[in-house]
Amino acid sequence: MSVPLFEKHQATLDAAVNAIHTRGFWTPYPELPSPKVYGETANEEGKRAVEALFNTEFTLNQPGQSGWRAPERSPYGVEMGVRYPVCDPVALVEAAGKAQTAWQRIGPRGRVGVCLEILDRINKRSFEIAHAVMLTSGQGWMMAFQAGGPHAQDRGLEAVAVAWDEMSRIPETAIWEKPQGKNPPLRMQKHFEIVGRGVALVIGCSTFPTWNTYPGLFAALVTGNPVIIKPHDNAILPVAITVRIIREVLAEQGLDPDLVSLAVIEDPAVTRALATHPAVKSIDFTGGNAFGQWLIDNARQAQVYAELAGVNNMVIESTDNYKGMLRNLALTLSLYSGQMCTTTQAIMVPAGGVDTDQGHKSFDEVAADLGNAIDTFLADPNVATAMLGAIQSRDTLGRIAEAGQYGKIVLASRKVEHPEFPKAEVRTPVLLTCDAADETSYMKERFGPISFVVKVADADAAVALSERLVTTCGALTVGVHSTRAEVLDAMTDATLRAGVALSINLTSGVFVNQSAGFSDYHGVGMNPAANAAYSDSAFVANRFRVVQRRYHVA
Amino acid sequence: MSVPLFEKHQATLDAAVNAIHTRGFWTPYPELPSPKVYGETANEEGKRAVEALFNTEFTLNQPGQSGWRAPERSPYGVEMGVRYPVCDPVALVEAAGKAQTAWQRIGPRGRVGVCLEILDRINKRSFEIAHAVMLTSGQGWMMAFQAGGPHAQDRGLEAVAVAWDEMSRIPETAIWEKPQGKNPPLRMQKHFEIVGRGVALVIGCSTFPTWNTYPGLFAALVTGNPVIIKPHDNAILPVAITVRIIREVLAEQGLDPDLVSLAVIEDPAVTRALATHPAVKSIDFTGGNAFGQWLIDNARQAQVYAELAGVNNMVIESTDNYKGMLRNLALTLSLYSGQMCTTTQAIMVPAGGVDTDQGHKSFDEVAADLGNAIDTFLADPNVATAMLGAIQSRDTLGRIAEAGQYGKIVLASRKVEHPEFPKAEVRTPVLLTCDAADETSYMKERFGPISFVVKVADADAAVALSERLVTTCGALTVGVHSTRAEVLDAMTDATLRAGVALSINLTSGVFVNQSAGFSDYHGVGMNPAANAAYSDSAFVANRFRVVQRRYHVA
Repeated sequence: MSVPLFEKHQATLDAAVNAIHTRGFWTPYPELPSPKVYGETANEEGKRAVEALFNTEFTLNQPGQSGWRAPERSPYGVEMGVRYPVCDPVALVEAAGKAQTAWQRIGPRGRVGVCLEILDRINKRSFEIAHAVMLTSGQGWMMAFQAGGPHAQDRGLEAVAVAWDEMSRIPETAIWEKPQGKNPPLRMQKHFEIVGRGVALVIGCSTFPTWNTYPGLFAALVTGNPVIIKPHDNAILPVAITVRIIREVLAEQGLDPDLVSLAVIEDPAVTRALATHPAVKSIDFTGGNAFGQWLIDNARQAQVYAELAGVNNMVIESTDNYKGMLRNLALTLSLYSGQMCTTTQAIMVPAGGVDTDQGHKSFDEVAADLGNAIDTFLADPNVATAMLGAIQSRDTLGRIAEAGQYGKIVLASRKVEHPEFPKAEVRTPVLLTCDAADETSYMKERFGPISFVVKVADADAAVALSERLVTTCGALTVGVHSTRAEVLDAMTDATLRAGVALSINLTSGVFVNQSAGFSDYHGVGMNPAANAAYSDSAFVANRFRVVQRRYHVA
Repeated sequence: MSVPLFEKHQATLDAAVNAIHTRGFWTPYPELPSPKVYGETANEEGKRAVEALFNTEFTLNQPGQSGWRAPERSPYGVEMGVRYPVCDPVALVEAAGKAQTAWQRIGPRGRVGVCLEILDRINKRSFEIAHAVMLTSGQGWMMAFQAGGPHAQDRGLEAVAVAWDEMSRIPETAIWEKPQGKNPPLRMQKHFEIVGRGVALVIGCSTFPTWNTYPGLFAALVTGNPVIIKPHDNAILPVAITVRIIREVLAEQGLDPDLVSLAVIEDPAVTRALATHPAVKSIDFTGGNAFGQWLIDNARQAQVYAELAGVNNMVIESTDNYKGMLRNLALTLSLYSGQMCTTTQAIMVPAGGVDTDQGHKSFDEVAADLGNAIDTFLADPNVATAMLGAIQSRDTLGRIAEAGQYGKIVLASRKVEHPEFPKAEVRTPVLLTCDAADETSYMKERFGPISFVVKVADADAAVALSERLVTTCGALTVGVHSTRAEVLDAMTDATLRAGVALSINLTSGVFVNQSAGFSDYHGVGMNPAANAAYSDSAFVANRFRVVQRRYHVA
């Protein structure tokens, strides 16, 4: 059977499957917002396309619509006023359920083809989506383009590739022929159908509205499930554009667009009712522990894939590139003002200091030098605004303001004026020192640009504390700087036990908070910060089942 | 790195992986208890090996042992008196945890090699294990050999193959090289380690102590987890022999035998405490709904893979082989006295009767003819005892005795004397008729040789009732007999919606209650009878995680 969209995108699929098996660098979506790649006018057109949506109704023609809402408040202070459809979640669930059978029937190749076409369309709209990500999340432009555009698309394609890798090994049919000695063999024809588990709910976050949404969206969709996306109330636009693109592609293919819908919900009780609807069989959630744990405890009818809070940490024991280490770490702590789920919060340094290529540095020197490195890095206001972006939530502004309570300030946060967005809340990181005993300070996620240099007894204590932080608070990233094999071995063993990804001696152009699609497993799924990873086989395998039938043939 | 046991068994592994991808007939473990295959003296030696264990202590040298227990009561009336070690479950968990790291470090190839060596040793002991299965479960000899021996080994090997298929696609290392325009590329070395989630608990059942235990045991073990098996109190011996073989192989390989242990537990509260121990990360359970649901609700720290009760059903709408159909169904209902989780319980027949190659048959004729077919099939006491085995539990005897309350008896159960085992409780099936409206009769699992011919309005009603039985009561098997494409299509659609395997027009040597390793997905995992299948990728993928580390290289 010819499946045109599958054939159209097969080369991309094959390369993606090869990439997840080899895990080297690969992407079909160029990460540089280059006019040569995306077109000379792409940036301007994308920006204008977003601005054209301001103060209008974002129509999606979804069922059960009762009104409109425009809840977004841009961290850049831009008045957006986009009005989104408010639809009865039960109507969305019922329409999704109706759309599922035809989606199942087109089979894995049909679904993969449609998903890859969707991703291709999304890629072509990268500038528009990036502007929407920037305005809603407060990310700087370059990050909004890269993480909100091509890198998010990478993670979506990765989920499709991992799922295809599972589904393609299940034959559609088989002849089962069992010898019977001298008698004719028993001979049966068998059919194996891949069936989605049911409606998937994807709950987005405020900071990475596409990067943290596309993996669950595409993993659920390609395995045969309808998807309802409930974006964060402050980061709807990038998701709404995505949903519109998906519904357009579905309609073009003669499929029911209600297979994928947008749920804009004001009342948390309504979200809870949707999450516990019996037809909802999976939930992908990125966000805080309170609601994440509520989902795990209460949405028992669904498989819940949750990325929650954590205390990412780093051990600095020694280095042969002190300046490189400080520069690398300064960028890690500055990027998007630490509003990444992968930003380092606790940096363990032995009380006796650190051996470096610049001589021995005391604990206080390391802390002061890191503060200076951040200050130097962000001295140029253009670099600072591009790197920091804007503070997404008032809660984060509050945490920055009260950070002095948590420890001794090494580097205070300062407000930076944004030349383009005068109302933007831009803040540099605050760096604190504290003692390992001050557990109430650093052993809790302080989301935002707030980090601690934690004084530990020695290297062994640093490794032990790092492991305890991961197992008790959770972590998506751990780093280590050491020139000693025994320290690196101990950190390797500790992170294998605790279940967290380890970055070793990053001193150049890769940062601990970066996670590359097709290569890095994001989240692991073994410690309290996340129960699933982007994208291993466990992320996709439970989203479908194989239903078989069999009968005798001659 | 040379991994001798992996290399020794690689041809078997490769063939098994090919089998799960193609799903034709395949097995490395011959199912016939033939002296040519297993040795001229294998049967006699196996029997004697089991009898030599009677009234002795079955030593395993496990930690935390406080005494011995001999709880088994053979359905054949044989006094076994094997005394098993009673060990503190917390000591078993702690010892298992200590054994895990070395087991992780030998990697997927090392673990696969050890698991395949274990399966090979188990296969060579098939007669011994079969006699143990027969005596404890009450199965007839041939089923005890096949289902308890080679077929159980098939399911164990299948789990290893499915897990290897997942693990082998994760590279141990990768070079990630990202171009940087005119600058040198960013270049990183990455390591990916497969890490088990933690202690696995496998809870066995009384009727298939190996077939329902090996999938979870081997899936958990090969993916890097220690395993504690808690067998049913009445079917310990086959599991104890299995555990002893495993511990021997582990010790030979210089691995800690406490990686796999036997938990013989009298007090259900102790089992509950073990199941909710924080270190227990997965539970494989086969058994009743009450404890299965308790585990799902309470063992929240673990992934629970559960096979529970169900009401397997069949629709008889028409047939072109009336005698073949009746003969096939008579054997299905007789095999192991219906004590299979796959035996048909509810047989829907239209009130207007059934078109057959023997002319039209009324509802009452179909029921009576099926009763006669069973009676004829079991007329010879040697056939009857071989086919029926013995009734495993007193609860089942009670249900047989009271079956007349559930409907109108078409064929009464009768007691059969067993020439070899005078104390054996052997019973023929009871067949009842009832109306579709008598839901309290047939819409509940009546475990044992109790089946209903249910009068339904017509074919449409039969299909609808079959689907409702699956979605509300659960089912592992559904069958249909029809010569009409529209009925088969409707049943196909209904079973795809409900998530259950369908057998169509079985009239010869394959039976609806048989499920072939490497070909048939047993259980699906989409309806209330089971939340997992033997063995799809979902059965293995969540039992391990990938933990990575990365660093720059030149």
